[in-house]
Amino acid sequence: MSNPIPRKKLPSLETLEGYRWVQNGQSNYSGNLLRLYQALDALFISWSREVQAEEHQFPIFIQAKELKKLDYFRSFPHLITFAACLDPSEENLKAYTETETLDANGAATLTKLTPICDCLTPAACYHFYITFQGRELHAPLYLTTRANCFRRETHYIPLQRQWNFGMREIVCVGTSDEVKAFLEKYRKLVGEFFEGLKFPIQWLQATDPFFDPSRNPKYLMQRLDPVKHEMIYEGELSIGSINFHRNYFGEAFKISRGGEDAYSGCVAFGMDRWIFALLNEYGPNAKDWPEEIQKRLG
Amino acid sequence: MSNPIPRKKLPSLETLEGYRWVQNGQSNYSGNLLRLYQALDALFISWSREVQAEEHQFPIFIQAKELKKLDYFRSFPHLITFAACLDPSEENLKAYTETETLDANGAATLTKLTPICDCLTPAACYHFYITFQGRELHAPLYLTTRANCFRRETHYIPLQRQWNFGMREIVCVGTSDEVKAFLEKYRKLVGEFFEGLKFPIQWLQATDPFFDPSRNPKYLMQRLDPVKHEMIYEGELSIGSINFHRNYFGEAFKISRGGEDAYSGCVAFGMDRWIFALLNEYGPNAKDWPEEIQKRLG
Repeated sequence: MSNPIPRKKLPSLETLEGYRWVQNGQSNYSGNLLRLYQALDALFISWSREVQAEEHQFPIFIQAKELKKLDYFRSFPHLITFAACLDPSEENLKAYTETETLDANGAATLTKLTPICDCLTPAACYHFYITFQGRELHAPLYLTTRANCFRRETHYIPLQRQWNFGMREIVCVGTSDEVKAFLEKYRKLVGEFFEGLKFPIQWLQATDPFFDPSRNPKYLMQRLDPVKHEMIYEGELSIGSINFHRNYFGEAFKISRGGEDAYSGCVAFGMDRWIFALLNEYGPNAKDWPEEIQKRLG
Repeated sequence: MSNPIPRKKLPSLETLEGYRWVQNGQSNYSGNLLRLYQALDALFISWSREVQAEEHQFPIFIQAKELKKLDYFRSFPHLITFAACLDPSEENLKAYTETETLDANGAATLTKLTPICDCLTPAACYHFYITFQGRELHAPLYLTTRANCFRRETHYIPLQRQWNFGMREIVCVGTSDEVKAFLEKYRKLVGEFFEGLKFPIQWLQATDPFFDPSRNPKYLMQRLDPVKHEMIYEGELSIGSINFHRNYFGEAFKISRGGEDAYSGCVAFGMDRWIFALLNEYGPNAKDWPEEIQKRLG
């Protein structure tokens, strides 16, 4: 995001009822805004039913050894958050409690850490490839989940750029044709939703935010053969994307379909960014929100 | 938990449809079990409506400087999980990508970390005291949330003892009398639920799992004047608790009510442990679950 997004009906987030920004890159929701969040997710779930996607609820951690199968640590070392705990020996814990525990800047004055084997989920759909790894599929899988995702950034902006954000995904794992048909279906369905509302979205080709991209063959491949199409709000903010992974995850996690590495693809919706775009277009009052949202308000 | 819990109708979790245990102390839910999870939460939400509790949705991190106000690091250093990221300098990230990234045991071969200022939520209700800190209340607050909570343990047991688990809480912040009346109401309501089902629960006084308890004045105070009553399933497993915090959080976070530090209390339900107890009592088939659950299945 290089330019600020034109401000339309977006209220001041400092005084917006039901919203609270916390300094560490996260949003709290209550009241009307929580209802908006839940209605929006109910809309995405209704879309997922078009393919009878099975819903899953995943935890926060992913084992580092699973992410390594994706070369995640070399591709995105700048984004990753690790789960760190103190070495549990009595002596080490006691030593920690005898420090100030935090320094003057609020940073932990850690003693010895236990080996770090877990990361916080960077993308919702990774859980599926891990869950189904080693499987031979006799039919395509259609899946959906909403997950807490984590990407460390150098700075944060409320609702737009958060360390911890919500992501709803609808995923297909199958043959290349099955996945392409799935992605085409959702490109059309989501496109028609935006067109019906005259919502200011452009679809743009994009690449993943690789570290040191010019040296990364995966980045170069994405440049040569675009596989990611983002829903760009007001020319600046990606609120979702449609991604064709080819057989990348199938190969990494040994999922097969029709005797070959399975193909996969996903439609991803950034919950907090959708909230931002909806508030900016329609303002904070439920009566002004699109009918598709209003009818799903709890 | 010192003794294994008598096995009744609990199916083998290895083959249970809709359940997957991951080695790092967490549960995945889908299908019927996800519906059970959601129905159970809907039941707790219906209970929260008895006091018109306002629902909040909180993120995963809590700033360490907030937890320090509770002396959390000295009281529970063995439980805490920190959010750790690599120092974002190009040089440091590059150095990391030039290591193996993980060692043979799956542990990250970290280079320099950036200062660690955030922790993963240890208890759902802490978010409320942080959110309302510095406020002068003119009426009691009734609040509810379901949060992902994190407690590092030396070993884990599926559904019973997890690093990452779900917790639904209903909270009151007010005068001592308001909080006591709230807790009494829920003691009765939850008690009647268990009695109606002849669910094998005993209410027992308990203390928080302090590090080095004999030296901790807060532990000694809890022993002298019990403030925590746990719902103990089959004599072993705490599936929830009712907690009177006195004015502890009101004082730490400068929340006042009637010119004094506010009192607070909460009713907490461990989602995964309730799933365990329900499966053990009633088995995996929805038709055998209590009516209060069945009628809330989506």
